[in-house]
Amino acid sequence: MKLNIVLLPGDGIGPEITKQAVAVLETVAQKFGHELHCTEHLIGGCAIDATGHPLPQDTVDACKAADAVFLGAVGGPKWDNLEVRPEVGLLGIRKALGLFANLRPAKLFPELAGACFLRPDIVQDGIDVMVVRELTGGIYFGEPQGQEVRDGLRTGYNTMVYNEDEVRRIARLAFETAMKRDKRLCSVDKANVLEVSRLWRTVVEEVATEYPEVELSHLYVDNAAMQLVRDPNQFDVIVTGNLFGDILSDEAAVITGSIGMLPSASLSSGGVGLYEPIHGSAPDIAGQDKANPLASILSMAMMLRYSFNLEDEAQVIEDAVQRVLRAGHRTGDIAAAGDSPLGGSKMGQLVVDEL
Amino acid sequence: MKLNIVLLPGDGIGPEITKQAVAVLETVAQKFGHELHCTEHLIGGCAIDATGHPLPQDTVDACKAADAVFLGAVGGPKWDNLEVRPEVGLLGIRKALGLFANLRPAKLFPELAGACFLRPDIVQDGIDVMVVRELTGGIYFGEPQGQEVRDGLRTGYNTMVYNEDEVRRIARLAFETAMKRDKRLCSVDKANVLEVSRLWRTVVEEVATEYPEVELSHLYVDNAAMQLVRDPNQFDVIVTGNLFGDILSDEAAVITGSIGMLPSASLSSGGVGLYEPIHGSAPDIAGQDKANPLASILSMAMMLRYSFNLEDEAQVIEDAVQRVLRAGHRTGDIAAAGDSPLGGSKMGQLVVDEL
Ligand SMILES: CC(C)[C@H](C(=O)O)[C@@H](O)C(=O)O
Ligand SMILES: CC(C)[C@H](C(=O)O)[C@@H](O)C(=O)O
Repeated sequence: MKLNIVLLPGDGIGPEITKQAVAVLETVAQKFGHELHCTEHLIGGCAIDATGHPLPQDTVDACKAADAVFLGAVGGPKWDNLEVRPEVGLLGIRKALGLFANLRPAKLFPELAGACFLRPDIVQDGIDVMVVRELTGGIYFGEPQGQEVRDGLRTGYNTMVYNEDEVRRIARLAFETAMKRDKRLCSVDKANVLEVSRLWRTVVEEVATEYPEVELSHLYVDNAAMQLVRDPNQFDVIVTGNLFGDILSDEAAVITGSIGMLPSASLSSGGVGLYEPIHGSAPDIAGQDKANPLASILSMAMMLRYSFNLEDEAQVIEDAVQRVLRAGHRTGDIAAAGDSPLGGSKMGQLVVDEL
Repeated sequence: MKLNIVLLPGDGIGPEITKQAVAVLETVAQKFGHELHCTEHLIGGCAIDATGHPLPQDTVDACKAADAVFLGAVGGPKWDNLEVRPEVGLLGIRKALGLFANLRPAKLFPELAGACFLRPDIVQDGIDVMVVRELTGGIYFGEPQGQEVRDGLRTGYNTMVYNEDEVRRIARLAFETAMKRDKRLCSVDKANVLEVSRLWRTVVEEVATEYPEVELSHLYVDNAAMQLVRDPNQFDVIVTGNLFGDILSDEAAVITGSIGMLPSASLSSGGVGLYEPIHGSAPDIAGQDKANPLASILSMAMMLRYSFNLEDEAQVIEDAVQRVLRAGHRTGDIAAAGDSPLGGSKMGQLVVDEL
């Protein structure tokens, strides 16, 4: 199979973790006889430095022509006070590629259970929650938005808006995701206050009739934020809007205690998918070979699974990561007191060796 | 001193916990020679049943004429499918009384440290975070809001809007709160995406110049949701908008493991204040004398402190609660395995006895 992949290493630790992840991908491609073709493009702060804009047209065109995109991370203090910031590149590429569905698994790796922030008795059965976040709508993109003077007062405003098509497609994808897992879906909204949430709930219930096997529940976002702490195991798949998903997927991820381990996938309808670690650009440790490449490596596994339907190849990567962890290897972010942590490149090499 | 108080017991466990809290208030009033005058009014589901509306005008008038309001809880499955739901009463009274500031302390009681959901080593120094939530603006009330058909598609929308006056008054109150505590304030927004957050941040920074002693920081809401789990002790006071405050104050509260213990205050500029436990109406245990009255009792302490400036009286209640806990008394919600839990009325009586 031919794998045409665009790499967007981005800023901070982005380039170094991308390198490790590509090495793993190359090894797997070779092993399974796939032809891998990677090109690198600019996004975020480095794109601002080189071209004046966080998302050059050239990057968009390359991504559209590719089968899948890998993104390292964007942003850093260097660009924080600009008018057009690196994040604009991230939001822009999501919109340009129609990446309406963000899949964010929050998984407690049994080998790293000690890092989990919750009381051990709450998580003795592990954590394995999939958050499905709508990614191209809601308050992130809703119009009108802006700042203006109203009645002599500076006023800022954004619009949280969804139409039935937007809700339906993310709901379907979430139900499909639940069908492949434990068939339990929890939709999160704020329907006791927001009109936009009431429409969300109505449409999710309509879609539910297509999936009679899936057990659907609803929670208000404030309650969901509580239940994730109280008992994350009660969840199988969570589906929610862009803003609530931003908050809850980060909360679910941090609870596991291993943010440096967690991948994500952003999917469109039939088009290209984008895969990225969730940890961000970590400018404080960039260039020191400290960053954990496992989230990026696991993002490549998600790419093989979702964009190329190569389940065996994905599994081989995930198993290799697990064996490396089981053998006790740790980067600084997941090391326990007393461990002597590995560098990121060494960690990448260990996964390659396992393959 | 004359204490003119309106009681809004509301629904579910509301009436039973109100009863215990009033008994405590009466005891303190007597002890300190205050003249207590309480009247009861309807709000929420019980108001719908009696009058067809969750917030009768008579209730609004009585609250406006009072010095302070105590609210038990509103809502329940019985009214969940109505057009106008009990929550409309809650939002309505906040707006009618101009209760723009919601103070939500998230406190780990040392006696209940075992109930905390976080790993013991994270919270060995306890938790004591004050969340200051804006309560009469933002997306809860922003216009336009509604549902309509656009381009043939059902569409729902709400507006998150703040003007500089709204941000300034909640920011000032938060800085004042920080001045009375550890002088650290963290403002939470989503300024990397939302225009309304950018105005929020600008105005908070302007107000900061009036409080040079307070150390101000900013976090994005997704990061704040993570940091609360990672290390709640890093926070002293958090200030944020209505929606983010709804989510984060509940998250902060649940982490302590003792939601049945936590009070709240909702304040206006110079006018009446409203005090309520944060736990909600818990219809499943209503009428069984199981509900923990301590959050309501501690809400009365907040009332004495904020509405009447009666610090000694507030302290006396808080000390009595602490002694009752220290003596090992527990209602079901805070009981450890093996404890035989007390009823709510017995718990209330124990606090009265301590006074
Ligand atoms: C950087 C920011 C714009 C982005 C978002 O809010 O979507 C990030 O938090 C994420 O979750 O990918
Ligand atoms: C019941 C609901 C409308 C309310 C809110 O969202 O404000 C509640 O969650 C709260 O925090 O008091």
